[in-house]
Amino acid sequence: MDIALSNKVDVEASRLDVMNFLNEMASDFPDAISFVSGRPTEKIFDLGNWINGVHDFAQHYADRHGTDVGTAMRMLSQYGRTNGIINDLIALQVEKDERITCKGKQVLVTAGCQEAMDLCVKTFCRDPGDVLLVRSPTYIGITGAASLNDVEIAAFSCDREDEVLHALKEKVHGLELEGKCPKALYLVPEFDNPTGEVLSRQTRESIISFCASKRILILEDNPYGMFRFEGTRTLPMYVLDRHGCVVYLGTYSKTVCPTVRIGFAIVPEVLFDGAVSGGVLVDRLSQAKSFSAVNTSQINQAVIGGVLLAEECSLKRIVEPTLAIYRCNRDAMIEALSREFLGFDQQVTWNCPQGGFFLSVLLPFKFEHSEAQVCAEEYGVLVMPMSFFALDDGQNYRVRFAYSNVTPEQIREGMARFAAYVKYRIASVDAAFEVYCQ
Amino acid sequence: MDIALSNKVDVEASRLDVMNFLNEMASDFPDAISFVSGRPTEKIFDLGNWINGVHDFAQHYADRHGTDVGTAMRMLSQYGRTNGIINDLIALQVEKDERITCKGKQVLVTAGCQEAMDLCVKTFCRDPGDVLLVRSPTYIGITGAASLNDVEIAAFSCDREDEVLHALKEKVHGLELEGKCPKALYLVPEFDNPTGEVLSRQTRESIISFCASKRILILEDNPYGMFRFEGTRTLPMYVLDRHGCVVYLGTYSKTVCPTVRIGFAIVPEVLFDGAVSGGVLVDRLSQAKSFSAVNTSQINQAVIGGVLLAEECSLKRIVEPTLAIYRCNRDAMIEALSREFLGFDQQVTWNCPQGGFFLSVLLPFKFEHSEAQVCAEEYGVLVMPMSFFALDDGQNYRVRFAYSNVTPEQIREGMARFAAYVKYRIASVDAAFEVYCQ
Repeated sequence: MDIALSNKVDVEASRLDVMNFLNEMASDFPDAISFVSGRPTEKIFDLGNWINGVHDFAQHYADRHGTDVGTAMRMLSQYGRTNGIINDLIALQVEKDERITCKGKQVLVTAGCQEAMDLCVKTFCRDPGDVLLVRSPTYIGITGAASLNDVEIAAFSCDREDEVLHALKEKVHGLELEGKCPKALYLVPEFDNPTGEVLSRQTRESIISFCASKRILILEDNPYGMFRFEGTRTLPMYVLDRHGCVVYLGTYSKTVCPTVRIGFAIVPEVLFDGAVSGGVLVDRLSQAKSFSAVNTSQINQAVIGGVLLAEECSLKRIVEPTLAIYRCNRDAMIEALSREFLGFDQQVTWNCPQGGFFLSVLLPFKFEHSEAQVCAEEYGVLVMPMSFFALDDGQNYRVRFAYSNVTPEQIREGMARFAAYVKYRIASVDAAFEVYCQ
Repeated sequence: MDIALSNKVDVEASRLDVMNFLNEMASDFPDAISFVSGRPTEKIFDLGNWINGVHDFAQHYADRHGTDVGTAMRMLSQYGRTNGIINDLIALQVEKDERITCKGKQVLVTAGCQEAMDLCVKTFCRDPGDVLLVRSPTYIGITGAASLNDVEIAAFSCDREDEVLHALKEKVHGLELEGKCPKALYLVPEFDNPTGEVLSRQTRESIISFCASKRILILEDNPYGMFRFEGTRTLPMYVLDRHGCVVYLGTYSKTVCPTVRIGFAIVPEVLFDGAVSGGVLVDRLSQAKSFSAVNTSQINQAVIGGVLLAEECSLKRIVEPTLAIYRCNRDAMIEALSREFLGFDQQVTWNCPQGGFFLSVLLPFKFEHSEAQVCAEEYGVLVMPMSFFALDDGQNYRVRFAYSNVTPEQIREGMARFAAYVKYRIASVDAAFEVYCQ
């Protein structure tokens, strides 16, 4: 080890190996069809137009501050308020689109949702023994934020939704016996990344009750909530929460575009049935932000502010064409799976998500690093082993498929390639079994 | 203490009290003239024009990637490379403007220089016993970044420049005796914030030699280097460094405008005379960044990219009118000080910086929190006690004046108000002394 650097960063490095591996595969096999990236579709990006919206936002900002547009543009060019300047517009948007009622002062605008996660983890889990709870598998961004901040992660896993509460309780109980303090629980209850799963209202409410009783803050991350293709939407946990234990995390990376790097956290006015003021928590997040990034770029806030003003603070209209694309892609993927794995229904299964960007496929053999490499090298298809998102050994037979940034043609061809590999593997096992029986 | 939050964040809170105090004074006394903020002048901000430059950058980006502008705009709307996309342009700019020779791969683009500081502190000082060295007084942003990351700060102070090396050596020696490991030294060698001081070439070189021998990384922060009014510029420490121990931190907040939130770190190709690869350090900074913010907004990078392309990668032309404003303000402030304190030259002294945003005034009485409050309340002038930037008790008689975002008229009137207070205090002391003698 060198003297200038620490080995501790290697904790993050192991997770980043996943990213590097995938990036390398993508550059080594440029002709491979990729189901790896959960990037939003680029088809409806309208950056030139959105940037022009800065001038409209400046007019709004001028009106609000009783000044002229020129002065507003100069104010927008300066350093700005740490907590943000579009908080009221965000509060209106989440009210219209998510039925979340909050005030602008409860909102902290962040440089994408990743910054919100980083700030929450470092602010909520600061003392020795503090633990962040996650389900396994879970989003790499949250485990990365935890290890970046030297925060211990405790993962619980369960195959069925009706086991979630029990698994969570067991994990918390175990941590308490160890003298540890579970401070926060990270969840994507609506179209989870990586699984595509949705938690029912009953499960959400029971988790809220339990966490409130234990004073565990729930970080409800909801990047995919506006992308429901069918079925009835379940209310966000923030809306169902009557105790003040849910911090809501949002982003405009999927609804508008990632480059704006605008996300946000919404903190309840009163936490834990009145035990703590939410304002104190907002202040602490803001303090941490001021020393990690000063404030979120006001250009980027103005871009989103302009979009929100133009759309009357609802993103429903703007996501409509995107939603149609994702629905079409989901359908194409389910059709391709059904077609390719006809007759294999005892061996290969998958979920059919009612929204979001991802689905997962369960295989009759282990699918990990080396299998993904064979798929890339020999079959020209890039897929994500679910084990990359796992904190235990329970995900070795599953594969994540992102259908958000591919075409139906790519889905058909890519799934045929993947199926060819899977069938080859199954046949190999069968042949080996026959040899074994002879 | 509440169960959800930790008291540790209070370490930052104490520093933020300073900011809050000043913000409160600013809002409580809106008619007061403020010398508190080191914000750049807004007079030459040209945000509307700079935003249009995104299209020019998109053309450049399209050419580089062999694609069309529409595709480039869509690529710019997506998630992007963690290390940035304008690294080559930044490398050209620092070569032209700072005589720094580096490759794009040595550059990490950050969300303002504050993020670069945060990433450096958390990446360089990770093990127990690791210490960050600073001079006292020093910039609040670096002490904030250190406490945010639970990194111990060790400050050394000295009144004269020829004592800097000695004070640094003594401090490092003391830390070594305690079994601690000084990992990095933060410096603003050119027009320091808060003091306005410049370190000579000889001092820079001796610090480099010493730090190289101790394997201490120097974080050279240079926000004000392009704002020299007169005299010969000293080369940046990065240029003088022959050992590979200087990481250069830059920002476009002062040369272009703060809202772009674009800063950067430049890491030597080879660290500590070949002991460590600089690439490893860039990778670790990049890893940390990917989990705190994913990547720096490509809109903002495109804005700066557009400016750099339009200016042929030198900011000399663009800062010319700003430089003239700052020079004029510095002159007005020195004139006002000379006029107001005529006959007080034994009691009130100040430095005359050859550039930058700040100067400091030394008084014959302590000037701290309560004195600043009296100035605000009773004299209508906001100033910054130097003790707010100090990590010891050695700065209690000094006051920092920022002249960057005020007019010469405000300087004349504000300095007259400040002088009225100072003369009142001196007269009170003299009167008390007379009473005492009688």
